[in-house]
Formats: sequence, structure tokens, C-alpha cells
Amino acid sequence: MATVGEHSTAPVKEEGDLTAEWGDEAWMRRCLVLAGQMAGKTAPNPLVGAVVVREGQLVGEGAHPGAGHPHAEVFALQAAADQARRATLYVNLEPCNHYGRTPPCTEAILQAGIARVVVGMVDPDERVSGQGIERLRQAGVEVTVGVAEADCQKINEAFVHRCVYRRPFGIFKYAMTLDGKIATSTGHSQWISGLAARTEVHRLRASCDAVIVGGNTVRRDDPLLTSHGVCDRNPCRIIMSRQLNLPETAQLWDVTPAPTQVFTQADVPPERQQALMERGVEVIALPRLTPATVMATLYGRGYLSVLWECGGTLAAQAIADGSIQKIWAFVAAKVIGGQTAPGPIGDLGIDHMTQAIALKSFSWHAVGSDLLLEGYLPNTLPQK
Amino acid sequence: MATVGEHSTAPVKEEGDLTAEWGDEAWMRRCLVLAGQMAGKTAPNPLVGAVVVREGQLVGEGAHPGAGHPHAEVFALQAAADQARRATLYVNLEPCNHYGRTPPCTEAILQAGIARVVVGMVDPDERVSGQGIERLRQAGVEVTVGVAEADCQKINEAFVHRCVYRRPFGIFKYAMTLDGKIATSTGHSQWISGLAARTEVHRLRASCDAVIVGGNTVRRDDPLLTSHGVCDRNPCRIIMSRQLNLPETAQLWDVTPAPTQVFTQADVPPERQQALMERGVEVIALPRLTPATVMATLYGRGYLSVLWECGGTLAAQAIADGSIQKIWAFVAAKVIGGQTAPGPIGDLGIDHMTQAIALKSFSWHAVGSDLLLEGYLPNTLPQK
Repeated sequence: MATVGEHSTAPVKEEGDLTAEWGDEAWMRRCLVLAGQMAGKTAPNPLVGAVVVREGQLVGEGAHPGAGHPHAEVFALQAAADQARRATLYVNLEPCNHYGRTPPCTEAILQAGIARVVVGMVDPDERVSGQGIERLRQAGVEVTVGVAEADCQKINEAFVHRCVYRRPFGIFKYAMTLDGKIATSTGHSQWISGLAARTEVHRLRASCDAVIVGGNTVRRDDPLLTSHGVCDRNPCRIIMSRQLNLPETAQLWDVTPAPTQVFTQADVPPERQQALMERGVEVIALPRLTPATVMATLYGRGYLSVLWECGGTLAAQAIADGSIQKIWAFVAAKVIGGQTAPGPIGDLGIDHMTQAIALKSFSWHAVGSDLLLEGYLPNTLPQK
Repeated sequence: MATVGEHSTAPVKEEGDLTAEWGDEAWMRRCLVLAGQMAGKTAPNPLVGAVVVREGQLVGEGAHPGAGHPHAEVFALQAAADQARRATLYVNLEPCNHYGRTPPCTEAILQAGIARVVVGMVDPDERVSGQGIERLRQAGVEVTVGVAEADCQKINEAFVHRCVYRRPFGIFKYAMTLDGKIATSTGHSQWISGLAARTEVHRLRASCDAVIVGGNTVRRDDPLLTSHGVCDRNPCRIIMSRQLNLPETAQLWDVTPAPTQVFTQADVPPERQQALMERGVEVIALPRLTPATVMATLYGRGYLSVLWECGGTLAAQAIADGSIQKIWAFVAAKVIGGQTAPGPIGDLGIDHMTQAIALKSFSWHAVGSDLLLEGYLPNTLPQK
């Protein structure tokens, strides 16, 4: 076996790790491991890993490194070479059947002589959806669909959301005390969560295409918003500021680690925009600055997932206009109290507890000394 | 074997459940099960269960049903009768060696001819502490101490706190949304948590001696504060109200399910006190009404554990003056937002996140669709 793909690094495998005893689901999980190694690098493309298995032995594997590069199937087939003949190909997302920047994967699969294809999930992209599977079946290839499907859906939840709703997938992350505060009454917030939780956030940032904060967060916390070396990549850092009343000096004005974009409104004085642009910061002036208009712009730029690390006011707007799909809430085992100490979400116009927004697929796990609670907001179509 | 004790009901046991294969720890856990069945009924006494085991077989068991009744050891020994001779007695708390309302258990143990005593933990009560063990050892009984000690300490955490700090053990329970709110901006709060969590709270109430709320909670929610039939007992319901500006009608004025006590300040007009007393409500006027002065009074009344189900303002006062030892926070998978929506804890005078009060022994588990987070506040000596 061999691994092909300049960005693909197969983890160290113990002897006997990949054996004839592995079933379809185990091979699919190997695809997901390969796919996950590219998290944050593939936008607007999905995370895809593929393995070629012949007589129970892995003979090739690969992952899609990102737009403009070959798809995962191609890397895996190249690695397998002649051994792909009469072998089984596992891939977490349906192979494409159209000419995009690269030729269709279905043709590569047929040319390689693959006898069986196991697909994790059907591609939600309407240019693909079902057609790749159909093409393979018509050519006499045995196709199994829906192995480890829930995990395949989850790893590409941002891609699926992008395809279905034509917007990036929004994640709202916050850290609060056990009494629901994200800062003291005086605005002090460092640190609520422990080192392990903060490292987990750095990892999350590395897997997202952009991180968004409001002007208040820049003025108060002067954040860096990078992955702090946890990964080799950083998201684009985005500030939403209607007035551009931003500090003269801020860590985000140093665009060496990652680009900084400031979204503002078209009516803001041009000299304020100019001052930022001279620092290498991109300024995007929208006719109306809202979370939804920013997300629409980021969709056009091909972003898959966007991390909201803003305060409660902006978070409430982003929830209200459908820009947030998932919540990541760290809860620390401490209390600070405070009648006026801020909570994570500002006004949503909810008066009655029965109007509360219920999260789906609520789950939690420990991260160091903190607890991470995750859940999904109900899907709403973005406001046009 | 037999079970003695009018209030003691042994759970149904499968055949082979209690066998010679059980070790000391398993028998101690049986003591804890028996002890736990008396939760809420024993104040000011501890929760104690005892079993007598001879040649690996259970020959008697019992639990202490509450003040004025015999201790657990006596019930177990009576049940074992002649079979107690040369048997082992397991008990989760050190047997007493003094004449209280009942004769010392150590004498009963010696008279029964017990050869070995296994003790979960030393009694923190200074009238007992170590003396029971010493007496038994001097009389030639083999004594093992500290079996399943952490669980023995936990089941009697209220009793231990009472002995050491001379105050009841305070538990602060609240239910909040994932964004840290206990009600909407308009004060609406029914319901945040689901049925399973509310049933768990009813169980918790049944195991406590009193439940405390402030006047605001009575005015806003008109609560019943009973165990809602989950158990056969209800805690005493306590309202703290400086002005006695309480509603004419309230569910708490019906004292059929459980007594209601109103704590107020001595300077409140006597006619307001009179109106309540005519309804069968006990009114206790303290020179200064604070959580600590109420807890001192409840200590004098022999209470073990007190459940605070109040709003944020009173909770902050109770935390600040050392009246709360443990927090039970239910977190529901929903968000409501709200800049002015109340959180669980009012002002504690904390400006800086580094001053946050860290909880000890933080743990969590699912209760229905909600998550229950538990932790302990640092122990502080009560203010005199």
C-alpha cells in the first residue's frame, strides 16, 4: 500500500491494524480519518477520504487536499495502481460524475477496474446527487450506500449546509461560568475556561474558514483569533463594525498570521476604510451590515464553516437571522454572580419560556476541567 | 434473615443476590442502600444502615428511622438474634458509645457477641468520634474502618457539615437555559427543565428538611414546594420576607401537605405577622434577617439539609454568607436570550474573573433531556 497526495499524511499504523477482519464500517471510518486530516483546507469542497481494499488488505488510500487538487478517489486509485483491479473502493461521499476542475471520479473508478464501491453518503451537491452512484451501477459496479452514514453526514455538515442553504455553516462558541456569565460586571473575562478548552477552541478555529467578532470584542479583548500554533493553518479573521470606530492598534491589524477582513456599511467615511486598508486589512462595505449579509458574502467566497466568537448582542442577531447552526458552549466549574454581568446571548425577543429555541442532538463531554455542551439550532432558510 | 424497623423496607432481592462471594465493600454498599431509604427522615441524626453477616450469609439488617428510634445496629442485631454470635456487623457510620436518647450501640454489639465490626467512616460527632471504635477494640472485637469511605462520607455530607460547622448543609438548586437564564426578561420561567429533571427536584425536596424561597418567588411563581407525591414526605417550606408583603392567597398558605414557616425581621408590623399565623403559618421574626441567621435558627431546630430554591438576589446573599455548600444546576438544551433576563446568581461583588469561586468535585449526568451539573462551594465557617 502507499499514500499519495502532497497534503495527505497517513497516521502511523501498528502492524495488523488494517486486516482482512475489518468490515465495511471499519474501512469507512478509515476514510473519515483521512478526510478529517484536511479539515479547514478544502473549502468550498467537502472533506473526503478514500481507501482501496483488495482481498481484505489496504492497497491505497488518499484524501482530497482542497479545491483545484484531485479528489480523494484519484489519490487512492493512483496509490493502488494495478491492485485496484477487482478491488473495493471506500469513500465517505458519493463519487462525482461531472467535469469540474478535475475529470469525473466515476470514470477513474471504472478505468481502474474497481468491482465494488462503498459510499458513506449521497452527495448533497445537486450536480452529483445520485448520479455518480447511478453511473457506476450502470457500468456493472456493485455499489453499497449509507455505511457509517451518520458520521459521514457529521464530518461534512458544513458542506451539506452550504449545498442545501447556500450559506456557510455557522458555529457559535462561547465559554461561560456555571451561573451563565461570559464576563464579570466590569467586562473581565480572562479566563473562564481552562487550558484544555482553550486549546480545543484553537483546534476548532483551524478547522473553520473564518472567525467573526464584533467591534466591541476588538475594543475590549484585543484578540488574536488564530489557532495559536495548534495547527499549521489559521482562519480568516473577520470584524463586523458599522462605524469602523476600531482601535488604532490591535493584534488583528497584523495580517502576518492570517488575513483580516473588516465588514462595514457602505455609508462609513472612506478615510476610515482607507486607514485600515493601508495596514493590509481588507475592507468590505455592504449596503446593509447584518450577520446574514456577511454570511451571504462569505458564501460567495466559497467558505464552508464560520466560527462566531462574538459577544451576546451580535450573537443574538446572528441567531435571529439564521447565521448560526450549531452551538459550542464551554461551562466552567466556577461562579461569579452579577446582576449585570453579561450572558452569551442578547435579546431574541422571547417573552415566554415556551418560545425558547430548542437545540437538537444535544451532547456533552469533558474538556479538561470544563464541560463542552454542543447542540444544533433548528434549520431555517437564510433571509434573502 | 429478617428486616426489623417499622420504617425500614428492604428492596426485593433476587435469589443469590447476597452471597458468600460478597466482600466488605459490597456489604457496606448494602448498608448505604438501607441508610438511603431514610433520607429526609432522620434529622438531626445521620443516615445509617447496618447488616449482620455470618459465614457469608446475611442474617439481619436495619436502618435508623430517625431521632427517638433505635440506631441501625440495634435493628440489625435484633433481626439476627442468636445468629449475631461470632458474626460480622457492617455499618456505614461508627457505632455510638454514649447514652443519648438510646443506650450505646457498642454495648448492644458486645452483648450480641459480634466478632468483627466493619465501619464505613468515623463519626464526626465529637461525642462519638473514635470512641466507639476504641471501646469495641478494647473489648476484643476486630474493627475495620474506612470501607467505601467516600460514599459513606457523601451520604452523610449534611450530617458531617452540621457536626463540623454547626449549621445545616445548604444546597442551591436552579434550572437554566444553555445561555444561562433562569427566566425570560418578563420573568416567565415555566418550564426550563423537562419532566425528569422536575421529578428529580421533587425527590431532592423529599430528602431535605426544608426548602427556602424569597418573597419574590412567592409573588411571581406561587410555588407549592412539595415532593409532588414522588415520596411520602415533604420538607418544611420556608419563605424569607423582610416586609411580609406577601400575597393574600398563595399555595404555601395551605399547610396541609407540609408546614410553612415565614422568616421575617423583628421590626415588621405585628398585624402582618398575625394574619399569617391565623392561617397556620409559623412566623419567626429575627433581629436581622439574613440567610446565615435563618440557617442558625434551622440548626437549632435540628435540620440537616436545606434546599435553596430562590432567585438570584437571595442566592447571592446565601452564597456570600456561607449558607450554601453545594450547587445543583440543571442545564436545558434551549436558548432564550435576553440582556435583562435573570441569571441564577446575583451580585457577589466579583470584578475580576480570577476572583471567581471555583467549585470542587464538579460532576454531571443526564436527567431526561437535561444535564445536571453538581459541585461544592469551598467550605467557609459560618459568620456568627
